[in-house]
Amino acid sequence: MTLLAGVVGFRGYSGAELVAILDKHSGVSPVLLEHRSDSEDRPRPRGAIGPERISCTAEAAAAKGLAVVFLCTPHEASMELTPHFLDAGIKVIDLSAAFRLKTAANYLQWYKDAHTAESLLAEAAYGLPEFYRDSIKGARLVANPGCYPTAANLAIRPLVESGIADLSAGIICDAKSGVSGAGRKPSLKTSFCEVTENFSAYSLLDHRHVPEVLQNSGLELAQFSFTAQLIPIHRGILETIYFRAKESTTAAEVVEMYEKRYAGEPFVRIYDPGKVPDIACVARTNFCDIGVKYDPATGRGVIVSAEDNLVKGAAGQAVQNMNLILGFPETEGLL
Amino acid sequence: MTLLAGVVGFRGYSGAELVAILDKHSGVSPVLLEHRSDSEDRPRPRGAIGPERISCTAEAAAAKGLAVVFLCTPHEASMELTPHFLDAGIKVIDLSAAFRLKTAANYLQWYKDAHTAESLLAEAAYGLPEFYRDSIKGARLVANPGCYPTAANLAIRPLVESGIADLSAGIICDAKSGVSGAGRKPSLKTSFCEVTENFSAYSLLDHRHVPEVLQNSGLELAQFSFTAQLIPIHRGILETIYFRAKESTTAAEVVEMYEKRYAGEPFVRIYDPGKVPDIACVARTNFCDIGVKYDPATGRGVIVSAEDNLVKGAAGQAVQNMNLILGFPETEGLL
Amino acid sequence: MTLLAGVVGFRGYSGAELVAILDKHSGVSPVLLEHRSDSEDRPRPRGAIGPERISCTAEAAAAKGLAVVFLCTPHEASMELTPHFLDAGIKVIDLSAAFRLKTAANYLQWYKDAHTAESLLAEAAYGLPEFYRDSIKGARLVANPGCYPTAANLAIRPLVESGIADLSAGIICDAKSGVSGAGRKPSLKTSFCEVTENFSAYSLLDHRHVPEVLQNSGLELAQFSFTAQLIPIHRGILETIYFRAKESTTAAEVVEMYEKRYAGEPFVRIYDPGKVPDIACVARTNFCDIGVKYDPATGRGVIVSAEDNLVKGAAGQAVQNMNLILGFPETEGLL
Amino acid sequence: MTLLAGVVGFRGYSGAELVAILDKHSGVSPVLLEHRSDSEDRPRPRGAIGPERISCTAEAAAAKGLAVVFLCTPHEASMELTPHFLDAGIKVIDLSAAFRLKTAANYLQWYKDAHTAESLLAEAAYGLPEFYRDSIKGARLVANPGCYPTAANLAIRPLVESGIADLSAGIICDAKSGVSGAGRKPSLKTSFCEVTENFSAYSLLDHRHVPEVLQNSGLELAQFSFTAQLIPIHRGILETIYFRAKESTTAAEVVEMYEKRYAGEPFVRIYDPGKVPDIACVARTNFCDIGVKYDPATGRGVIVSAEDNLVKGAAGQAVQNMNLILGFPETEGLL
Repeated sequence: MTLLAGVVGFRGYSGAELVAILDKHSGVSPVLLEHRSDSEDRPRPRGAIGPERISCTAEAAAAKGLAVVFLCTPHEASMELTPHFLDAGIKVIDLSAAFRLKTAANYLQWYKDAHTAESLLAEAAYGLPEFYRDSIKGARLVANPGCYPTAANLAIRPLVESGIADLSAGIICDAKSGVSGAGRKPSLKTSFCEVTENFSAYSLLDHRHVPEVLQNSGLELAQFSFTAQLIPIHRGILETIYFRAKESTTAAEVVEMYEKRYAGEPFVRIYDPGKVPDIACVARTNFCDIGVKYDPATGRGVIVSAEDNLVKGAAGQAVQNMNLILGFPETEGLL
Repeated sequence: MTLLAGVVGFRGYSGAELVAILDKHSGVSPVLLEHRSDSEDRPRPRGAIGPERISCTAEAAAAKGLAVVFLCTPHEASMELTPHFLDAGIKVIDLSAAFRLKTAANYLQWYKDAHTAESLLAEAAYGLPEFYRDSIKGARLVANPGCYPTAANLAIRPLVESGIADLSAGIICDAKSGVSGAGRKPSLKTSFCEVTENFSAYSLLDHRHVPEVLQNSGLELAQFSFTAQLIPIHRGILETIYFRAKESTTAAEVVEMYEKRYAGEPFVRIYDPGKVPDIACVARTNFCDIGVKYDPATGRGVIVSAEDNLVKGAAGQAVQNMNLILGFPETEGLL
Repeated sequence: MTLLAGVVGFRGYSGAELVAILDKHSGVSPVLLEHRSDSEDRPRPRGAIGPERISCTAEAAAAKGLAVVFLCTPHEASMELTPHFLDAGIKVIDLSAAFRLKTAANYLQWYKDAHTAESLLAEAAYGLPEFYRDSIKGARLVANPGCYPTAANLAIRPLVESGIADLSAGIICDAKSGVSGAGRKPSLKTSFCEVTENFSAYSLLDHRHVPEVLQNSGLELAQFSFTAQLIPIHRGILETIYFRAKESTTAAEVVEMYEKRYAGEPFVRIYDPGKVPDIACVARTNFCDIGVKYDPATGRGVIVSAEDNLVKGAAGQAVQNMNLILGFPETEGLL
Repeated sequence: MTLLAGVVGFRGYSGAELVAILDKHSGVSPVLLEHRSDSEDRPRPRGAIGPERISCTAEAAAAKGLAVVFLCTPHEASMELTPHFLDAGIKVIDLSAAFRLKTAANYLQWYKDAHTAESLLAEAAYGLPEFYRDSIKGARLVANPGCYPTAANLAIRPLVESGIADLSAGIICDAKSGVSGAGRKPSLKTSFCEVTENFSAYSLLDHRHVPEVLQNSGLELAQFSFTAQLIPIHRGILETIYFRAKESTTAAEVVEMYEKRYAGEPFVRIYDPGKVPDIACVARTNFCDIGVKYDPATGRGVIVSAEDNLVKGAAGQAVQNMNLILGFPETEGLL
């Protein structure tokens, strides 16, 4: 029997990717929840029949028998919609930042807004399966991680936990993303002529994804520098992460540490010592790929972590979480 | 009276940019020295008359009365050609890496090749006018800086000299360049389909430009991490540089330090505290633009340094050096 | 003595290009007329001083002593502003479509709006110097041609006038433009992620530039098919134009016809028979380049006409027109 | 039971796409035939196991029990390899131009080379299933169509067969392709810096794909103008096709004609009258999408035909042909 999964915000880049993944899923079919209709659809052939569309209310969702709803909405909308779906007995996987931080105070500090669904913060599971698989499995509400923090935490947390990195020298994460990370709403910053043949840094040191990395990696603010940057490409994230080792090691040892940590993980892949992935290695996949370069002479190391921001950084990871909470094999629809 | 400047390697991206700049120079006209004719010319309208072409020999150059020759050639060719032009009394501005490092031993270590014109290393002036203007003025031979080291040294050296940076935490330079930095020779790595919709890191920690930064910035190898990365754009470099301050400061103080250091410099521009340039700010100009973000709460700072790799990173800076050695106003042809 | 030229709409792509060209002009300096301030400026270095800004009124313009005003505005705004500047004795070069068509009826048919300054249509000179130089010289008001029609008319009109083309087979103009042709206002159609890795046709057979081609080329509607298409590049237009010859000819004869027609024209360049320009041949120049391929066996021919939509297709041609009406050499600021 | 399909030329863009499609096919697994190893592999994660590799000989292929071999090779190599595989009882689907034209004379005229396997020309089935399904089913050797001719023939042939087009006015096909159509071998023409921010026409009127369109559409040379053009994108073809109608019709009637012709075809999709596909509509799919704009007032019409050059224009269509000759459902692996 096929379960139904609602998608709110299906016209956005993450939402459209999610619908495409669900279309290939053997156990779930998508239903579109019409929340706002202000952005345009792309041209479609005659007779094309997409997923069914219903109105975006808890009543309609319950009547339709949805097992889960994905929210590909701004965080304000997610805070508003989530309680209604949960009250109707429908599980929620939220792709916004609404439920990622553990306290309303932290949310207020970074998002400059009072949290309007504070009571749900404690119960929301942080949807990074490689670290929180068990709590995700039983959750009603999953906070799907941000695109930058997914690639950052998968690379940084093992470096911290293993004790390899000398945190007194800090960890630097120089992150670059394709333009789809900024969403589909037209703006000057994402206009073609402003982006093509350009490369720009933004939110230096104060990007909203910083607290999400701190909360899940074990780093403190003073130990972490983060820069977000815009690559003139549609999709993909590459993060170049710098550390200094506590004591002399080798690239092979660092690689081995990652391999042990991620043994059995279907969506994290490690490269040979000295080799690193590029964005094309992970584009349109749910993989996060990690490579290591290390110079024993100086103790300085570099990690390259790459993912597709719309897949492992958003829709793919959301389906991975859905597979966990609905009891499907974790890789279903994602390989 | 118009002086004549020879250009070897005029079909390459730096060479073509150089010819275009010289065409607008009020005191110098370009002459093309035909060294190799294996790469193709672009389509041209009927009747288009470009600069005169002569053969690439010291004799032809002397007979033509060239005042200076620019070498836009691989370093092997530069080592071979330079002594001949100098012997013929013609000044040389070399855009390759042949004469940038001060010792043959250092050259051998990073370029894996014996230097074949070692006796010229001592006399070659390093062509970064903001730091070596006086020695450039009297030089017969100018080693035009590498594209990455130009943006790096202009940003890092003041940070080191001013004592602002705590070097014990290291300096990280995460550098990104447009594809023209790799030259015009076809290769898989610079093929359109390999580069578009991609972003890749290369030469992590061991890029050949590293010793050039160390030699001119005052950093030691153990204090410096450098990564080169390829942006899917034609031209432009942006370097994101991370430091920790020795003692608490502010972005305004760091900006003020740069402004003092570069007061009167025509080609270095500083941004307001917290603001940083993007590549479009400097594209097709001879400027290197520098912006600063600093977090007093953690002592962590970020510098963004941007330039056009073909202008301030190559041909423009070469003309700036030519203006110095031939006695033209330093900005002639460059504003 | 330097004359002053006002620019309304200086933040748009054509307006910014215009200011950049005027900055290099030996006889004219730009003054910015602040009409609307809703679109953002780009980051600028400290201490950068741009042109003076005054308010966008005929009084302010007259008080400042402007010799001419360029309108880089939507056609509605141009219809409203033009009479005021003309009444104040200031010449107007309008880059919008407001005054390009000769009758209000034709305007209504294609722009679906009543013309609000109909009385000026008769006196407006159509600013294509290669065909209307004399009337431009004495004009108070110049209607700067559309980007597509400039490249189209320069290629098609000689084909019609010379009698080479068999008009019974029609003329096909398959036109492609960079994204800046759509202006700087953010929209989904010009968002990076919608344009990159895509190519799309729009306004097939009914583009608003069609009547402008008909009016100036001598073609009738039934003889002309026009398609506009979006290339994922910032700037540049290439039009591929198909014709059938009345009687057998050769590419050389067609090329010779163009050369005769454009002898002495500084901004139209012709290519050898069988050779055609690409967009890189004309990018950032005021040239329109024309190449011809013809097959004597079938009587079928192809013309490729290329220009930079922001220069010969907008700001450059506007300065060319300004040079004509103010008595400067026609090429001043444009080579 | 899973059948094995050999792939020669698996490192090229079509070959890699083919391997990716076969990896998802339920009834066939790919085997790589190592023909030349001069082009580089992309970086791969540790432990990644790709398809088995064997040497490229008929003996090895037969020993391995391959049911079919795909040749993603230059036409010279295809002419040499094909007879050996056929002699070994292995079916061949050739993606080169070697067996597409029906006579050696025609091949010589357009490819300027004597055909070295002329005896196979008659038996080769032209692999455009929408027109030659029956002959493909029984074939030992399938000539997979060229990328441009696939989109052209699917659009043009119904226009000719239905009698809608007035052929005396000719058919114009203005074709544009992404860069992967030129293959993976590095060349200046496909170097990033030569292609980005550019758009260029090539092989005007004499492209090698012209005879393939004539042979399958029913047009004669004098009735057909074809231009190939390079879009700065990785993949995708869009062809803008111009015709004049014999007698007055409507876009709806033309659309209806296409719908009837392609009723039941799984990979041809038609758009509403006046609507046309862009490249994003078909990217990474095996669809060829067709839209129609027609102006009854003038009798002029435009067809837009779009496909992914690597899928319906190469690897996807090759698998569609394989499904036909091996008896799988035609859409297996392709939806």
